[in-house]
Amino acid sequence: MKNKLVLKYIGKVLIGFALLLLCPILVGLYYKESISPFIIPLSISMILGIFLNNLKPENKNLYAKDGFCIVTVSWILISIIGCIPFMIGANLSFFDAFFEAVSGLTTTGATIFTDVESLSRCILFWRSFTHFIGGMGVLAFVMAIVPLAKNDKSMHVLKAEMPGPTVSKMVPSIKKTLFILYGIYIGLILLMFAALLIGGLTPFHSINIALSTAGTGGFAILNSSIASYTPFIQWTVTIFMFLFGINFNIYFLILLNDTKNALKSEELKVYILLYLFSVIFIVANTYHMFDTLEEAIRQGAFHISSLMTSTGSSIGDINIYPTSCRILCLCLMLISACAGSTCGGFKISRLLICIKSIKRDILKSFHPNSVRTVTFEGKKVEEETIKSTRSFMLLYISIIVLIMFLISFDNLTLDQTLNAAFTTFGNVGLCFDISNFAEFSNFSKSVLSIGMLFGRLEIFPIIVWISTMRKKSSF
Amino acid sequence: MKNKLVLKYIGKVLIGFALLLLCPILVGLYYKESISPFIIPLSISMILGIFLNNLKPENKNLYAKDGFCIVTVSWILISIIGCIPFMIGANLSFFDAFFEAVSGLTTTGATIFTDVESLSRCILFWRSFTHFIGGMGVLAFVMAIVPLAKNDKSMHVLKAEMPGPTVSKMVPSIKKTLFILYGIYIGLILLMFAALLIGGLTPFHSINIALSTAGTGGFAILNSSIASYTPFIQWTVTIFMFLFGINFNIYFLILLNDTKNALKSEELKVYILLYLFSVIFIVANTYHMFDTLEEAIRQGAFHISSLMTSTGSSIGDINIYPTSCRILCLCLMLISACAGSTCGGFKISRLLICIKSIKRDILKSFHPNSVRTVTFEGKKVEEETIKSTRSFMLLYISIIVLIMFLISFDNLTLDQTLNAAFTTFGNVGLCFDISNFAEFSNFSKSVLSIGMLFGRLEIFPIIVWISTMRKKSSF
Repeated sequence: MKNKLVLKYIGKVLIGFALLLLCPILVGLYYKESISPFIIPLSISMILGIFLNNLKPENKNLYAKDGFCIVTVSWILISIIGCIPFMIGANLSFFDAFFEAVSGLTTTGATIFTDVESLSRCILFWRSFTHFIGGMGVLAFVMAIVPLAKNDKSMHVLKAEMPGPTVSKMVPSIKKTLFILYGIYIGLILLMFAALLIGGLTPFHSINIALSTAGTGGFAILNSSIASYTPFIQWTVTIFMFLFGINFNIYFLILLNDTKNALKSEELKVYILLYLFSVIFIVANTYHMFDTLEEAIRQGAFHISSLMTSTGSSIGDINIYPTSCRILCLCLMLISACAGSTCGGFKISRLLICIKSIKRDILKSFHPNSVRTVTFEGKKVEEETIKSTRSFMLLYISIIVLIMFLISFDNLTLDQTLNAAFTTFGNVGLCFDISNFAEFSNFSKSVLSIGMLFGRLEIFPIIVWISTMRKKSSF
Repeated sequence: MKNKLVLKYIGKVLIGFALLLLCPILVGLYYKESISPFIIPLSISMILGIFLNNLKPENKNLYAKDGFCIVTVSWILISIIGCIPFMIGANLSFFDAFFEAVSGLTTTGATIFTDVESLSRCILFWRSFTHFIGGMGVLAFVMAIVPLAKNDKSMHVLKAEMPGPTVSKMVPSIKKTLFILYGIYIGLILLMFAALLIGGLTPFHSINIALSTAGTGGFAILNSSIASYTPFIQWTVTIFMFLFGINFNIYFLILLNDTKNALKSEELKVYILLYLFSVIFIVANTYHMFDTLEEAIRQGAFHISSLMTSTGSSIGDINIYPTSCRILCLCLMLISACAGSTCGGFKISRLLICIKSIKRDILKSFHPNSVRTVTFEGKKVEEETIKSTRSFMLLYISIIVLIMFLISFDNLTLDQTLNAAFTTFGNVGLCFDISNFAEFSNFSKSVLSIGMLFGRLEIFPIIVWISTMRKKSSF
């Protein structure tokens, strides 16, 4: 029976998660804080994990469908277990704690807490650490599942995510691929950690900011997010947010000394151009609100990095932005940065494929008999990929509208409703007119939590899983 | 040379337009008002029309591309000529007059005037009459052009608009098709006119309301739109707005005594269900704001009819709607009613094709080797139609975002900016938080005017025309 195999893999994930829960416990022990918030979830995760891992499945073939199942169920279980520390350690209700945990694991960074500075250090670390787990989580899951399903054509859904040169195409084994990607991830975190230490921060501040930025999450350990740090720290965070928005395969190419090919990437070019355009646009529209031009540029560059990579940290009040800047920011939140990074959102590569294919269709309507192919990163894009990318875009927009509709019963303004849907579904965390998500009803918090999961898992895994469930129950 | 043929057809359109300008002149003469606002545009249109019509083209074959050219250029010329009465007769600036004329001809109904009751009767009639012209204008143009391009595959763009049984498929000649469609159009107008007379309105009020409703326009001759009329009149307008949202081919089938087939229409069913759901939803969320349940239902039914068919008349303040109702209304504005009606918007048939094709794609991702076709109105939908429908939807959303961005420099709130873009591009005219478009800058008025044209002509003709222009200039 196949279910057993799926459950076995979920068990492995839970054991891994239990081990990860040791990290905040170590922090708690170091600072002599109560570690009880973590003992219960660790026990649950470990016991359930070992039990499931001991199942003996007969069938050993895993297809993409099963992979989707594993990913979705794991995320939901981890979110539920991961919210227990917030319930015990910070007295949150289940809905609030679940929202906070999902927000952390999906690297959204939208928070329920109005005063994070009152939290214990191990809880603060747990918040940042969930970003670290979630940041590479999806990527790792995807990578781990891809080679298991060689003959399964449904993989074009996932392939759409990384149309360029990917590590998995260059490295034969999945283990090596994961090793390289995690290597780059942790390498960048250490680099950022060192830069923040050089900037004069304490190790605790540095590690939290580095973990939160690496996952493009946005949870902070100060109520003012990054605003009360020095300009040097703010610039450092700006740069690293930008760097974590780049496809990790680019770094791999650079490591292989193939910088020429790395810099050829279309997506990278568009990312850089879009970033520069946005910063210039924001600065041009807001510089008169700041004392110095440096401050205006720093604020603009920081917030564009933050919104575009779906991080969601802030160093000032973005509500001062005029409507034109807000619309630009909302678009950036929707699009986000490069595929193969830790960012949420629609991804530039998908946007490019959509734009190119629409352009192709229009051109084709004049010359119906001409053969036109859509190319991306120098290669032909399969019609199947185009189709699924467009489906994805339409689904993406539909789900945002659905989220807006469902949370609109809280009767916030249309502005606020729109912003809440964009920032959660895009896994951003920062948005206009909403500073805190505690004001939403439990129903809306649940909707937004599910929205974050859908956004993070890029819709399809969850839909596949739901459909599989439905089909099974119909037998 | 082909340009000459295109110009000749534009000439014919202009001569027709000049003749239509006689109608407000007759109204002016009847009420002993100054008819000078109409003399100049009539002369310009007639002289230019005769001049162009006298061109002697060598080539007599017209392709869809040329048809798009004729449609687009005609609309722009007619809008420019049609705004002259507002400049002379109501002292509007060019930008304001152009906005008002485009709003009339595209059957949007968004207005610049803060006090329409101060306008002369012939100007008021001209406003309503532009709705009448624009309402069947596109349909007639499309119908007139289709049979000219039998071997031109680019027509799938237009075919997507009317995927069901169309009159042109049942009647051999184009003239007969037009005759039937205009017959239904004018028949419905006369029916409505009679109903309004029975309701106790003067002939002048009745004809204006009937013309404005027929084109699903929304210009009114009272400042309060339809609010100060009796409930009987308001219900009459509600019903006729709804009726003008139905595909005219349905009426044709009913005329042919084929009611059974007519009622089988998928689009009609969805239209009715969506309408009923929306009214119930609005009433459920707003009944506590009204004195009687009848009033709540009347207001709900009227405004849903008005927004869904992109008419834009009103009988009360829709700004009292809570956010959930607003989001529903915005969605309805975007979708609009049936293809083959006088409505603007995306159309239910396109939405259904999109939803079905996405569903198909998702199902296909589990069973890659299965063959699944998308059917609509009992027939298989061609892949080309699916493709262009999806392109259309993505373009539609992109253009709304673009319009929002361009008009955002007026620094209205995001709410207002969003509503202005939706209501103009969807050719609705009524929206939340904006009662009047005079407050926009000239730049924004121009953007919104072009947006209305794009929305009315359903994007593609204008894009095709622009591309053709570009290609010509590159030779």
